Amino acid sequence: MIRLGIIGYGYWGPNLARNFNIAEGSKVGCICDMNQKSLKKVLKTYPDMKVTSDSAELIKDPDIDAVAIATPVFTHHGLAKMALEEGKSVLVEKPFTYTSAEAEELIELAEKKNLKIMVDHTFLYTGAVKRIKQFVDDKVLGDIYYYDSVRVNLGLFQHDVNVVWDLAPHDLSVMEYILGGKPEAVIATGAEHFNRGLEDLAYLTFYYKDNVIAHINVNWLSPIKVRTTMIGGQKKMLVWNDLEPDEKIKIYDKGVQVKTKEGQYNLLVSYRSGDMWAPRIEQTEALKLLADSFNDYINNGREVINNGAAGLRVVRMLEASSESLKNNGKMVYL
Amino acid sequence: MIRLGIIGYGYWGPNLARNFNIAEGSKVGCICDMNQKSLKKVLKTYPDMKVTSDSAELIKDPDIDAVAIATPVFTHHGLAKMALEEGKSVLVEKPFTYTSAEAEELIELAEKKNLKIMVDHTFLYTGAVKRIKQFVDDKVLGDIYYYDSVRVNLGLFQHDVNVVWDLAPHDLSVMEYILGGKPEAVIATGAEHFNRGLEDLAYLTFYYKDNVIAHINVNWLSPIKVRTTMIGGQKKMLVWNDLEPDEKIKIYDKGVQVKTKEGQYNLLVSYRSGDMWAPRIEQTEALKLLADSFNDYINNGREVINNGAAGLRVVRMLEASSESLKNNGKMVYL
Amino acid sequence: MIRLGIIGYGYWGPNLARNFNIAEGSKVGCICDMNQKSLKKVLKTYPDMKVTSDSAELIKDPDIDAVAIATPVFTHHGLAKMALEEGKSVLVEKPFTYTSAEAEELIELAEKKNLKIMVDHTFLYTGAVKRIKQFVDDKVLGDIYYYDSVRVNLGLFQHDVNVVWDLAPHDLSVMEYILGGKPEAVIATGAEHFNRGLEDLAYLTFYYKDNVIAHINVNWLSPIKVRTTMIGGQKKMLVWNDLEPDEKIKIYDKGVQVKTKEGQYNLLVSYRSGDMWAPRIEQTEALKLLADSFNDYINNGREVINNGAAGLRVVRMLEASSESLKNNGKMVYL
Amino acid sequence: MIRLGIIGYGYWGPNLARNFNIAEGSKVGCICDMNQKSLKKVLKTYPDMKVTSDSAELIKDPDIDAVAIATPVFTHHGLAKMALEEGKSVLVEKPFTYTSAEAEELIELAEKKNLKIMVDHTFLYTGAVKRIKQFVDDKVLGDIYYYDSVRVNLGLFQHDVNVVWDLAPHDLSVMEYILGGKPEAVIATGAEHFNRGLEDLAYLTFYYKDNVIAHINVNWLSPIKVRTTMIGGQKKMLVWNDLEPDEKIKIYDKGVQVKTKEGQYNLLVSYRSGDMWAPRIEQTEALKLLADSFNDYINNGREVINNGAAGLRVVRMLEASSESLKNNGKMVYL
Repeated sequence: MIRLGIIGYGYWGPNLARNFNIAEGSKVGCICDMNQKSLKKVLKTYPDMKVTSDSAELIKDPDIDAVAIATPVFTHHGLAKMALEEGKSVLVEKPFTYTSAEAEELIELAEKKNLKIMVDHTFLYTGAVKRIKQFVDDKVLGDIYYYDSVRVNLGLFQHDVNVVWDLAPHDLSVMEYILGGKPEAVIATGAEHFNRGLEDLAYLTFYYKDNVIAHINVNWLSPIKVRTTMIGGQKKMLVWNDLEPDEKIKIYDKGVQVKTKEGQYNLLVSYRSGDMWAPRIEQTEALKLLADSFNDYINNGREVINNGAAGLRVVRMLEASSESLKNNGKMVYL
Repeated sequence: MIRLGIIGYGYWGPNLARNFNIAEGSKVGCICDMNQKSLKKVLKTYPDMKVTSDSAELIKDPDIDAVAIATPVFTHHGLAKMALEEGKSVLVEKPFTYTSAEAEELIELAEKKNLKIMVDHTFLYTGAVKRIKQFVDDKVLGDIYYYDSVRVNLGLFQHDVNVVWDLAPHDLSVMEYILGGKPEAVIATGAEHFNRGLEDLAYLTFYYKDNVIAHINVNWLSPIKVRTTMIGGQKKMLVWNDLEPDEKIKIYDKGVQVKTKEGQYNLLVSYRSGDMWAPRIEQTEALKLLADSFNDYINNGREVINNGAAGLRVVRMLEASSESLKNNGKMVYL
Repeated sequence: MIRLGIIGYGYWGPNLARNFNIAEGSKVGCICDMNQKSLKKVLKTYPDMKVTSDSAELIKDPDIDAVAIATPVFTHHGLAKMALEEGKSVLVEKPFTYTSAEAEELIELAEKKNLKIMVDHTFLYTGAVKRIKQFVDDKVLGDIYYYDSVRVNLGLFQHDVNVVWDLAPHDLSVMEYILGGKPEAVIATGAEHFNRGLEDLAYLTFYYKDNVIAHINVNWLSPIKVRTTMIGGQKKMLVWNDLEPDEKIKIYDKGVQVKTKEGQYNLLVSYRSGDMWAPRIEQTEALKLLADSFNDYINNGREVINNGAAGLRVVRMLEASSESLKNNGKMVYL
Repeated sequence: MIRLGIIGYGYWGPNLARNFNIAEGSKVGCICDMNQKSLKKVLKTYPDMKVTSDSAELIKDPDIDAVAIATPVFTHHGLAKMALEEGKSVLVEKPFTYTSAEAEELIELAEKKNLKIMVDHTFLYTGAVKRIKQFVDDKVLGDIYYYDSVRVNLGLFQHDVNVVWDLAPHDLSVMEYILGGKPEAVIATGAEHFNRGLEDLAYLTFYYKDNVIAHINVNWLSPIKVRTTMIGGQKKMLVWNDLEPDEKIKIYDKGVQVKTKEGQYNLLVSYRSGDMWAPRIEQTEALKLLADSFNDYINNGREVINNGAAGLRVVRMLEASSESLKNNGKMVYL
């Protein structure tokens, strides 16, 4: 039974608390937040919970076995480092760290101390993403042509990071899980409108080898909420609309075949347009499954897909995107 | 009464024929197509129509006052030039020409001969675009933050141009009409998957001054058809979904206000989320209104929004996009 | 080659003209309308068409082999009777006639004269309905539990019939084709709001044997257009949304199993919720296929699903519905 | 501070517990359920909660001031009666009771003992219903023509009541709140498919005076979930889609005007089709507002819309519907 300490009880912390409490292998032992109001909220739901506003106190608490860090990104490295040094495995909110150097240091430290790092890429544990991964691995879609994701809504503006660091980690963690391999380069364009030096909308194009292309559209200034990913393949095409309550994934038996006969002017294109199919998706709450995996990782060493290395890969893509953005869309190699 | 000759009776030609026949000020006098099947189709609908497979014959026909050119883009310049030299005004399918030099030559020639050029940017005559233009000009949206358009579907692959030249002219003609001004630069990314050297999906980012940004997503390999444009403004935000049968335009009374008090760490962001409103849109067929405007332009010289100069501006944006695409997303200045 | 005369060139007549002209086995030989404006419209599209405002003239025209009647329902019987007496087969708009007695008389007359009657139940020739029929006949849905259809929109008010006679013939013709058998009784409720004695909205419940129930909701006063039919079966359930451009039919692998163990209080219900599947639908225009069938019926005697008998069955259901409406929802047996 | 006892911790009980705990004026003091598993669930969330499997114990507990009854309907009367006799006000789940006689007895008892009864018609406290009520009362829609509601989904089958008693109370409570007045009669049709004697789908038509008609479609065998209510008025029409996350209410500036000139054959109908408008809806959780109202009702006697009388009116409509169903759709007067 892992006794988990949670640092940060803002938007996501309550979900961590609820799920790690429900999970078989863990119990929340202490919750820390700098804000007294948040601690009051903790006690309203968990009257007996140990609370503190001092993260070091939580980290050093001998009753705490592992630490979940759900604070702003620029604090991740410091808190995780302290926890690892105290011999405690960590679950870190996405994005893992602010720089890839920080991530590398944490990974090295964890290895040295034989501890575990998990990054909270919750989407990887959703029924939808697991199903998509399976379809892609089973070659149901055939060779992949493109990955195109739109994640836009109104707000919530972050005060320390731009829209890419806020919204794109979801897409990047899923994209790199689904597509495998590694993008070779990125071009990022975007704009900001409030003199803060932080883009509020951005467009990222990732180039993979074999002409596979991925595009991510993130926007804090959209009047409507969109969470749609399209994956085009040679054999079939897939649309994942995460806002659909029931049929989140639709697979289209559609395709194109292009032939060009030698010496012939005209293009021979044949289109195939068949059935659409919405497979049933597992409904279990993703964070519940992630909590189980975290506990299993700590207790039994069963490897997870969202380990520190996966977190680092996402941070590198974010860094490269930021560099491209700062240089007016210059191509940045990964 | 303008007697119009139409060259090209493929996908769009029949629409031109029907609308110019219905219009008060014109009548179709001759239709040309290289394909005998197409000419048979003409005669099925218009048993008395004069037909020919020789475009020069149509252009030189003294019974023809003006010429509509609905053929592949690489033929536009040659046909339009011949028509202008024969003293006949022209309506040219979009995109106007294959190069901006061709467009400039035609504009100059028309001016010299006191003839008219109209480019068939049909969307400018839709109820939706006219309404949006009015909202933007009336400052209903306030200062514009961004213009974001998605135009994707399965096929139809063109054999002579890439997806940008095929689909983006719609967006570019609307974008430059709505936003006014001139984009300063473009970055285009994309990919092709059939060894044809012609991109089948592409993403264009246009930079305007004052941090206004426009993004256009065009894709021939999408399993679903999407025709959605979002325009974010300081006061209100607009979504135009051209596939909606009734409520094509939705205006959201939503907005963001960001304040940063001096010396203060926290960002003060206030979100405003009010009513949504779908104004009634005029339903008249756009091509009918365009035909009326063309006739009025020829007969009475009433200036049109989609003249040769507008066509040229779109061609320049296409050229710059192609140049960026060829140079791996290099920023190209306009 | 059947030379067809068309009486009535209002909303539907032009579609008949276009499709019977395109069809291999027929050609439109004469068009009749009492309204001079309508005849002008005819000549705009078909400059050489023979036109008349005298239906008798058309019917007796020796150049006309068969007659299509697209006029208000109360004229159907008289015109069809005259045509049959002149030895000409007829295609009659739905609903076939105003009373079942009229329909019976026409059917008898046609039989006596060895002529054909087809009723224009166009929906039976759509790809969607043909596919649904196949699914039901193949027992894909299992035993049918219910048929539930909603057909509502704003207007168009008819001046001679209520909303049931205007909109429900579509549903009734499809329902009786899909379900087979014969409803045993109907209860109709409704209301009217303009002192015309003609209901503008109505709800029809048809009882079939084995607890199969069908419900039809028709409404001229709906702000939105709805064309949705649900068919619940023991094995699977189907939703047909005719307004969807692409996926008109969705089949849900959902079901319920109810067991009650003897002597046990609690109900044992198990729900099955599996994939959804949208089969590809044939896209050919239904009226084109109907025209082909009509021609084949006349020329070769190949029986059709929408013959006079089918038309009569629909009229009987309409009559019974009207009787129930007039008697405040009294159950009327069929 | 009201100390509330809750009987029944199945589907709805946890929501009652959470909201009455959050509410200013109340605290949950005891929770009762016959099922030990449910009591364990209570303690997982509220480790210090007093629990019991004996409803009488809870009711007679001197630390309990008022009792919420969230058990199957056939137990409502007995439990509520005991509570009232013990001098405790009650909140009763919908439907209030199984018979109107039971409801009348409880109302009388409460009055005699100066206690309060509230029925949990939660929907009346949603932002959507409050907004609709306001529009109707302010005559924004003009005279009402009809009220048409669809509430269908797959399951959940109840073992003691049919689909009308399970799903329709929501619609009936809203309908009678919005329309005011009293329906004069009802016709109910329906069917059952599992030999249980309990309808699994039903259609209710309520007749109000002045040709106002209301129709409610409830179905446990629908593959898709629908929660849509249309209200047609002389001036405007409203669609309430409760499944929309944001724009639950849409108001259409659409209408019909019918004139019949004396001695004239043709009907003069004019259609008005203007803007659509989706007003912003208050987002507060309805049950939270209901809890506040309950507390205010008990403490300060502020009358509520969902008192015992409102509950009785709904039970009468349910009884009449059942009687009509049992008599094959006979019209039953209210």
